[in-house]
Order: sequence, then structure tokens, then C-alpha cells
Amino acid sequence: MQHNLEYLLEKDALEAAVVKYCTAVDRLDDVDDMLTNFTEDAVLDLTGLHLPSFVGHKEIAGFYTQVFEDMSHHGHLLSNFRVEKLEGNDAQVKCYITGLGRSKAGVDIQVYVWYDLILRKIDGTWKISVFYEAPLLPMPESVTAVHSKG
Amino acid sequence: MQHNLEYLLEKDALEAAVVKYCTAVDRLDDVDDMLTNFTEDAVLDLTGLHLPSFVGHKEIAGFYTQVFEDMSHHGHLLSNFRVEKLEGNDAQVKCYITGLGRSKAGVDIQVYVWYDLILRKIDGTWKISVFYEAPLLPMPESVTAVHSKG
Amino acid sequence: MQHNLEYLLEKDALEAAVVKYCTAVDRLDDVDDMLTNFTEDAVLDLTGLHLPSFVGHKEIAGFYTQVFEDMSHHGHLLSNFRVEKLEGNDAQVKCYITGLGRSKAGVDIQVYVWYDLILRKIDGTWKISVFYEAPLLPMPESVTAVHSKG
Repeated sequence: MQHNLEYLLEKDALEAAVVKYCTAVDRLDDVDDMLTNFTEDAVLDLTGLHLPSFVGHKEIAGFYTQVFEDMSHHGHLLSNFRVEKLEGNDAQVKCYITGLGRSKAGVDIQVYVWYDLILRKIDGTWKISVFYEAPLLPMPESVTAVHSKG
Repeated sequence: MQHNLEYLLEKDALEAAVVKYCTAVDRLDDVDDMLTNFTEDAVLDLTGLHLPSFVGHKEIAGFYTQVFEDMSHHGHLLSNFRVEKLEGNDAQVKCYITGLGRSKAGVDIQVYVWYDLILRKIDGTWKISVFYEAPLLPMPESVTAVHSKG
Repeated sequence: MQHNLEYLLEKDALEAAVVKYCTAVDRLDDVDDMLTNFTEDAVLDLTGLHLPSFVGHKEIAGFYTQVFEDMSHHGHLLSNFRVEKLEGNDAQVKCYITGLGRSKAGVDIQVYVWYDLILRKIDGTWKISVFYEAPLLPMPESVTAVHSKG
């Protein structure tokens, strides 16, 4: 990857795409907005959390519909963003996420994970085509309890 | 907002202005330095935290004087920075802040909030003209207890 | 420091160097990779944490060998990155780090520190020549207990 203006602009756009995803998941109220972060054929692979994989907009919408029903508060804090690959309209990025939440049942969650994301630029906009995450620190029990109902 | 070199430079300057604010609030020892982060007519609107609004340098100085007297340690950790508006010398940015503190009375604070800031560029330097923050996650009781004395 | 494309590229490279260090310390399995983050004559000054200073690759390798033996998990979350000095191949940067860990003995660590780093660009790559860190918030007892054995 040549480090030049083009690189900085793409890196900024890629990080903004991840921040946009975080904003959508933290709003907890708009599944359609959430889907704009994913390509039509995206894979939301949560096997690193011992949860299923969800393939395509319909399955992904089902997952977030359940999450948004379960949770009253969310905070997804991004750090250590880095570009692993950038070739034309294809990119891979990694980052850390501090995931905070409170469920409507009153369970507080605080987890530390890393994201490994494949993104594809479609009509000038980066969208997630493969979303993988796994724990950075050991997970508390509460996480599986809250999210495994779906 | 056209994404070009000018945009990257302004976004960098805007984020640096928020980091500079965090550095000032974490130093806990220089109210004059803190005031350089705000326009003369700035509004520090803490109503989202059930605290007052402070208008202009004198009132803002009063608030931080009290905070700096109360607290022995501060950490304001910035993440998820994004530019919502950028038009010439006017900008709006949003971000998350993890707010850490220990009061001189020995009370530990850890809060997760978001900032919504209006900034104005004056003589080439971005300064905060409207500072609004609100909880991202529910606030612990300790926060109001520490800050509401002012 | 003139704020132009050159500045943005160098700032990005400097931040990427710190993220690379964090990635190495969080992998916990490759001391040689860790050493690529430091100049041959680097000083790893941990006196701000009431630990020793380590000078040169051999001593630094000894420290991280011990840390990697002690810890089963690590997370070093970077925020509030700023460039304090940038003159040719010499730079100084500061940032906050949220340091998370679990020792193999089962002790969980969560600390908030700031880094003050001097970096030197060698053959086009920024490397740390002086690494200093100190607590942002008071340290829990567990930290010294885990790291002071080395």
C-alpha cells in the first residue's frame, strides 16, 4: 500500500464506515439504517463469540431486530483501527471495540473484542461484506445469555 | 462535504481541538488554558447531565474552577470521532468520551457519554462555541453528587 | 509544524507505529516482532510505574519475555493520540492507553496510563527510541504484583 493522499482518503472512509456501523448499532432503533452498512450478500460471522453466522440482509436484519428488542443501551467504542489490505474496491481492516450495553432486563455488559472486517466499495461507498469478531479479553457469561436467544 | 486534502486537514484540526480540550480537562490545573478551547460567547450546555448551562468565559471558568478543586484525577478518552458538518469556518462534530475521575473525597467515577460540539474557526484555530454532552450509558449516581455542588 | 499532506502522512505513520506496538504487546507470543518496534538503543522507561528502565534490545526482550510468560490475555487500547514534535526523522507523540490484561495466575488488570514516546525514522520506518509511561488514574495494586517479578 503506497502511503499517499489516496491512501489517507480511503483509510478515513474505511474508518468512517466502521464508526457509522457503531453509530447504527448504538442507536438501537433502525434496522434499515443498520443494513446500509452491509453488502447484500454480507456474512455476519459471530462464531468467534459462539453465536451463529448470518448471511444476507434478511438474516442480518433478523439478528439486529432481536438485539434492538433486547437492549436498552449500547456503546461501541472504536480504537486501534488499522488497514490490513487495500486494493481498489477491496479492503480488510482490523480494530478493537469496547462493547457496552444494558439489556432491558437490566443486565449490564462490558466486553472487549476485535473486529476483522472485509469491505467492498460499491458506488463510492464502503460496505461490510464479511464481519468477524472475537474476544480480546475473556467474555463474561452475561453476553451469551443476552444474545443467544435469537 | 467533498472528501479531499482540505477535508482531511480540517477533520484532523477538529479532532486535535477536541483532544486539546480533553488534555486541558485532565490536567486539572489551568483554567486559563481551558478557556482557550472555547469562543468568548461559548455555551457549555450540561443539561443532558442534569446540570446547568454556563454561558461565556466567566461562567465557564467558574465551572471548571470548581471541578478542578473537586477532582484529584481525570481521564477523558476520545473515540468514534466524526464530522457532522463542515462549512468554511463552521463545523459540528460528534464523538464518544469515556470519562474517568477520582474526586479528592475519594469517589471514583466512570461514565460513558457522547459529545455534540459546534466549533468556529477563529484566526485559523477551531474553538468550541456550543458544547453539549449526554449519557451514552446510564450514569452512576456518583457523577451528580460530585459535580452538582458548583 | 506546518499542517499539510506531509504532516498528515507522518502523523498517520506515527499513530500506526503505536498501534503496531499495541498489536505486538497484545499478541503475547513474539518477542522478535516486539523488538521491531524499538530502535537498537531504545530506552523502555517504566519508572513512572515504579518499575525499572530497560536499555537496548536485549534488556527489552528480557522484559517482554517475562510479561508474555506471565499473561494469558492483553488489550492495549489507544486514544487521544497527538503529535508533540515532528522535525524530519525525529518525533515525539503522546497518547492515552487503556491497558487490559489477565495473568495466567488469573489476576485481571485494568489500568489507564499515558504514553510519552520519542520516535526516530530509520529507513522510512518510525521506531520507538524512548518509551515512557505513567498512570493517568491511580493504579490498582495488582499491576506491580504481576509485572515486578522480572
